[in-house]
Amino acid sequence: MTGWLAVAGLGPGAEALVTPEVTEALARASDLVGYAPYVDRVAPRSDLLRHASDNRVELERARLALELAAAGRRVVLVSSGDPGVFAMAAAVFEALEAGPAAWRGLDIRVLPGVTAMLAAAARAGAPLGHDFCTLNLSDNLKPWSLIETRLRLAVEADFAIALYNPRSQARPEGFARALALLQAICRDARPVIFARAVSTGAESLRVLRLPDATPELADMRTLVIVGSSQTRVIDRPAGPLVYTPRSAAVPAEAS
Amino acid sequence: MTGWLAVAGLGPGAEALVTPEVTEALARASDLVGYAPYVDRVAPRSDLLRHASDNRVELERARLALELAAAGRRVVLVSSGDPGVFAMAAAVFEALEAGPAAWRGLDIRVLPGVTAMLAAAARAGAPLGHDFCTLNLSDNLKPWSLIETRLRLAVEADFAIALYNPRSQARPEGFARALALLQAICRDARPVIFARAVSTGAESLRVLRLPDATPELADMRTLVIVGSSQTRVIDRPAGPLVYTPRSAAVPAEAS
Repeated sequence: MTGWLAVAGLGPGAEALVTPEVTEALARASDLVGYAPYVDRVAPRSDLLRHASDNRVELERARLALELAAAGRRVVLVSSGDPGVFAMAAAVFEALEAGPAAWRGLDIRVLPGVTAMLAAAARAGAPLGHDFCTLNLSDNLKPWSLIETRLRLAVEADFAIALYNPRSQARPEGFARALALLQAICRDARPVIFARAVSTGAESLRVLRLPDATPELADMRTLVIVGSSQTRVIDRPAGPLVYTPRSAAVPAEAS
Repeated sequence: MTGWLAVAGLGPGAEALVTPEVTEALARASDLVGYAPYVDRVAPRSDLLRHASDNRVELERARLALELAAAGRRVVLVSSGDPGVFAMAAAVFEALEAGPAAWRGLDIRVLPGVTAMLAAAARAGAPLGHDFCTLNLSDNLKPWSLIETRLRLAVEADFAIALYNPRSQARPEGFARALALLQAICRDARPVIFARAVSTGAESLRVLRLPDATPELADMRTLVIVGSSQTRVIDRPAGPLVYTPRSAAVPAEAS
């Protein structure tokens, strides 16, 4: 039996946002590996072994998935959203690079998914319709000074900014600092979107102006999008739509 | 009859990457609107009116979709990838904001999809596993000086950089200038990925070092990902894997 490893993205939550490619890989798998709440999203099957783990053991989880594939198992390692955006794919390749040479002969595929910022943006309108950047505020992955530098440069570049993991357990003050910094350097009333658990039963969406945003609006399940200086809000009876126009100001002589 | 408009992402090309949510919206639609090659990706049906248009008429297409919905039709406006990333969603909201007030009462939903950079990243490994930014090099949307500023700031922030529409017809020299600028300011051998038509029969993937990258490696169907300074390549018999580690350097006292 030849093993393989598929590192698969389950999308933001709804079954209707799981790609058929991922569904098919799950149907062919012998082993399911992942953070327990993501493993719980896959229906049990008598011939599918489940290996659910805690959130704080990404490299262990990646090594387990690689070991199982090397032993001939058909393994799906599940992430929420897209596995390549602040999820398990990078952990797998870190483990692969540090692991036995034989692992480099394994059949490994990454199966993309709808990452949280795309689901959040779709719910709010089109805030990522122009150039943007994507930052992970999760704890322990980088020093605060680097986050601050990146936020300053992102505002200078006038990117819309998607912020993942704004309020982590180990660094709850991180988002408060990030938000205070953005309020200080932007000095305008650009829109900010707090999108929580999009596409699940716990979904909520808040659209505010940057000066009105407060840290407690975000929790572990919230994706925050800070508009660029060009991001606009359309008022509607059904709720506001937020979008960033496709064009940036083009000087008359260049158009 | 109550009309609606779904602005839907068909993903990068493969049927297996179209979400069930989009498939269901297409099954319920009375009218299909979009750029002709994307409309062609949807199977004909006797009760589905097709409105295919040229690439250069995004706002016209958006207005047509809104007019049809306002007339009570069930409209799906299709984009490749995700509609919110350099695709039709922003054009729809530009048209909506400038259009009749009654349009603000329409039932409009954006249905997310797997955008090209996620599919390209998955094929290459996990180059977007740490903070990154996403730029559209398409012509006529912004002055060159703004693109140059953003590229400089993105490198200073040490983002991985995803470049959409690198070689547009109206501005073929844009990508050559962008690449020359990146080579001049990065002064290292970070990996660059040229991912063409990922998930289609025309797929190709090239991984090079930045000094070896040349503009003609990109065309209209190519998505380019330039690594950060931390992006790594793992050599394997089946081809290289490119990934960006989750952690940036953390000073000893901060870890």
